[in-house]
Amino acid sequence: MMPRLKFVVKGRSKLMADQTTGKKENAITPSREANFPEWYQQVIKASDLAEASTVRGCMVIKPWGYTIWENMQRALDDMFKETGHVNAYFPLLIPVSLLEKEAEHVQGFAKECAVVTHHRLEDNGKGKLVPAGPLEEPYVIRPTSELIIGQSYSKWVQSYRDLPILINQWANVFRWEMRTRLFLRTAEFLWQEGHTVHATADEAIAETLTMLDVYETFARDWLAIPVIKGKKTKDEKFPGAVDTYTIEAMMQDRKAVQAGTSHFLGQNFAKASEITFLNEKGESQFAWTTSWGVSTRLIGALIMTHSDDDGLVLPPKVAPKQIVILPIFKTPEEKAKIMAFVTDLARNLKSKTFCGQALRVEIDARDIRGGEKSWQHIKKGVPLRVEVGPKDLAAGTVFVGRRDTHHKQKTSINTHEFIETASQILTEIQGQLLERATSLRDSHTKKIENLTDFRAFFTSSGDDDKTIHGGFAAVHWHEDAIGHPILSELKVSPRCIPLNWPQENGVCIFTGKPSDQRVIFAKSY
Amino acid sequence: MMPRLKFVVKGRSKLMADQTTGKKENAITPSREANFPEWYQQVIKASDLAEASTVRGCMVIKPWGYTIWENMQRALDDMFKETGHVNAYFPLLIPVSLLEKEAEHVQGFAKECAVVTHHRLEDNGKGKLVPAGPLEEPYVIRPTSELIIGQSYSKWVQSYRDLPILINQWANVFRWEMRTRLFLRTAEFLWQEGHTVHATADEAIAETLTMLDVYETFARDWLAIPVIKGKKTKDEKFPGAVDTYTIEAMMQDRKAVQAGTSHFLGQNFAKASEITFLNEKGESQFAWTTSWGVSTRLIGALIMTHSDDDGLVLPPKVAPKQIVILPIFKTPEEKAKIMAFVTDLARNLKSKTFCGQALRVEIDARDIRGGEKSWQHIKKGVPLRVEVGPKDLAAGTVFVGRRDTHHKQKTSINTHEFIETASQILTEIQGQLLERATSLRDSHTKKIENLTDFRAFFTSSGDDDKTIHGGFAAVHWHEDAIGHPILSELKVSPRCIPLNWPQENGVCIFTGKPSDQRVIFAKSY
Repeated sequence: MMPRLKFVVKGRSKLMADQTTGKKENAITPSREANFPEWYQQVIKASDLAEASTVRGCMVIKPWGYTIWENMQRALDDMFKETGHVNAYFPLLIPVSLLEKEAEHVQGFAKECAVVTHHRLEDNGKGKLVPAGPLEEPYVIRPTSELIIGQSYSKWVQSYRDLPILINQWANVFRWEMRTRLFLRTAEFLWQEGHTVHATADEAIAETLTMLDVYETFARDWLAIPVIKGKKTKDEKFPGAVDTYTIEAMMQDRKAVQAGTSHFLGQNFAKASEITFLNEKGESQFAWTTSWGVSTRLIGALIMTHSDDDGLVLPPKVAPKQIVILPIFKTPEEKAKIMAFVTDLARNLKSKTFCGQALRVEIDARDIRGGEKSWQHIKKGVPLRVEVGPKDLAAGTVFVGRRDTHHKQKTSINTHEFIETASQILTEIQGQLLERATSLRDSHTKKIENLTDFRAFFTSSGDDDKTIHGGFAAVHWHEDAIGHPILSELKVSPRCIPLNWPQENGVCIFTGKPSDQRVIFAKSY
Repeated sequence: MMPRLKFVVKGRSKLMADQTTGKKENAITPSREANFPEWYQQVIKASDLAEASTVRGCMVIKPWGYTIWENMQRALDDMFKETGHVNAYFPLLIPVSLLEKEAEHVQGFAKECAVVTHHRLEDNGKGKLVPAGPLEEPYVIRPTSELIIGQSYSKWVQSYRDLPILINQWANVFRWEMRTRLFLRTAEFLWQEGHTVHATADEAIAETLTMLDVYETFARDWLAIPVIKGKKTKDEKFPGAVDTYTIEAMMQDRKAVQAGTSHFLGQNFAKASEITFLNEKGESQFAWTTSWGVSTRLIGALIMTHSDDDGLVLPPKVAPKQIVILPIFKTPEEKAKIMAFVTDLARNLKSKTFCGQALRVEIDARDIRGGEKSWQHIKKGVPLRVEVGPKDLAAGTVFVGRRDTHHKQKTSINTHEFIETASQILTEIQGQLLERATSLRDSHTKKIENLTDFRAFFTSSGDDDKTIHGGFAAVHWHEDAIGHPILSELKVSPRCIPLNWPQENGVCIFTGKPSDQRVIFAKSY
């Protein structure tokens, strides 16, 4: 039998509230419990984040979704600059001959490339435009930019004095995958890709780990997503990398999202791109490079980490609007008074800061039914809803609903007090979301010592794609276990070898060989 | 004989200074006077802004160039948001059948499209990767996004209540032109494209003009580029537009750069994309749309407006660094003292603001020859150079050079006073650059009344591409003059019909027909 799901581990549980009143009145159908993947699509639709395009596998990121991305970008970009990086921009197209220079790399991407073969369109004589002007050499739209950037670096780097190079690029990339899902896996996606060059392996490894830390900090402090930092096993690393590091997050259905990666590329790409430099002794050497990236996929992780059966739930730090004010009135006289009041309220709130920036406040005075209006903002995940009607005005209070609690749970707060504490309430919400997500992750991360328990962990709750999926299984593992049939059978993969976990001797549950470390396995997006 | 050029109209002239001393010692060869196009390339190289890529027609925007773009983006984006716009993101690829929906539009872009025809690469059996997986329908990489965005808008707009839609996109676009020039004309470039939808023609026209004003303000107040706002003549408008408005700037070689455009699209694209809405009476109507954009081409205009024979000159508001501090020392003891002092100085300067942001200050303590170091920053256009050596330290002063004056003209300023007035000096520089550019433009904008003078205006200074090019000729014009042979002969085109110029009756200098307005003609990039 399928166990009852508790998505909300701490704080007021939406499902429990429903059970108390015996009523079922959620904005999103189906619920997370009934069909998580479909719930995910419906949350995106209800919150107006994005939609599929007619262009195969591509999405349209709508303003509400794009503003979340902008907020993420701003915070990440500041962190990149604080760690000494600058931005630049490199070409969208990569000559096929260039892509071929790193054998493992091209193999990893050749199957899903958008290939540009012509440079104009021409009427075919029947009124139809067809490709014309064939190119001498085809190009692919960048799936990632190691090689096109490497080509520049090989020119820029001459001496050890030119190092390190610490550059990041904000860009769109294209990987024409067959099975796509909004934000999580789309043909075109937006990302940043850092590409750095160093004189020594140690420096490059330090950079790789520094950026992994930046990603962990960003996920935790901005997205309220706790992650596990780790190293990818050999079979899961980036094509062409020596080592790939990752941050892995657990979604509410217990599947993992690889939320960001940082690669130590050794000298592989320096050799492919001929990035050499003269060291202090005047000897020519290959440089050491890294690359690291996060993408709009983070928005998918954000949705699946925090949202509930009423729609999107947003950490205040990245919410496009943190507070929506909903004026309530019937007569023109009431309207005049209330509008004057909320205009003032909004101005006062905007003069306060949260996280170093002015509060993002909106007045929604549209002439539509109050209930419908309120639900729109609930579904879009606005952290605080503030209702102001004639009674509130008379009492000197505002009626405040928090998105992280049940939609009916609203509190009257003295207006002045609310203005003074709004930022603090947002901080509380931000903290509460992180706490919930951390509890969920921790309560579903289990040390498992044998294959029977491993199988049970991933199948006891049903094994179709619509239900929950065990969690993070931390098991002893030996490299020879790569390709073990139970993994494809259960659709489970090694997520990472956690950093900072104590060394621990044991026996690989797949091969019986000795192991001195645990590896986290999970189903994943 | 070619007249002597005066590039600098007001303020200290570099060339004059050289004549005084009889020395010629500029960082850039050739000079603007000798060969303007080559000077332009050399300034870009010397200031490390960008370089050509091996990808046909594409450029690499290097960190110094990209940071200028980031500063522009930030300022423009704030202005877009203040005028009620939000950002979103639409697909990179456009199905050819979609592009064909607006006949004039597709004609305008078909000749220079990057066409995607395959979705993977495959080994051809001889170890070479070739395009595989032919697509049912080819795509082009967006040259502009009216039609792909229109496809979304047709779904989003149902009722007058859904209007207006005020969306902007920051994106890369691709137009595979044959003759490219860094920043001014590249196959791939970065831009923003606003796309709005309105219920009435009046509203759409008002939006078109609002954004033209935004562009004018941005060019003037941020880039220190004075522009002439105007309407394009019929032959020069955007393919598919009803009216195209433009801001035109005059470069130091007197050629024009079209620095930004704003299009009133009428119902042309609404019809192509089937954007209809029910009005308040419940009648179905086609909507009215606009689009408007500026691109990395603005960086080209920035270079050619302000830079001199020593390299880039940057308006402080968009300079990546506004102040560079150059510590000068010989002994380790001096170094310790000087470094402590400049660290303190930089911190103090960074606590001051310019244009609402903390001053951007760099200490350049690299161990290279002082002269060379100083020249690097001159060539990169850093507005203020601050030298600090043991003597300055003893005197309590710093030695300050302004980029908008001769490189040898430096002033000792009391350190405390400098910290307090640095922001004000930057404001002066910003103003000075605008004043110079305005003087140049005004002194080379001439009313011309007949073809003989028109020809003389554009040929008296030589007619090869390397020299100066007349300026802005304001002449009476009638639509029938489109295609007049003298225009292609002189390589001159109508730039715009200036807005806000008084009505004035006259006779078209090309056709003799009556005219009630002057049109500005110029050579252009």
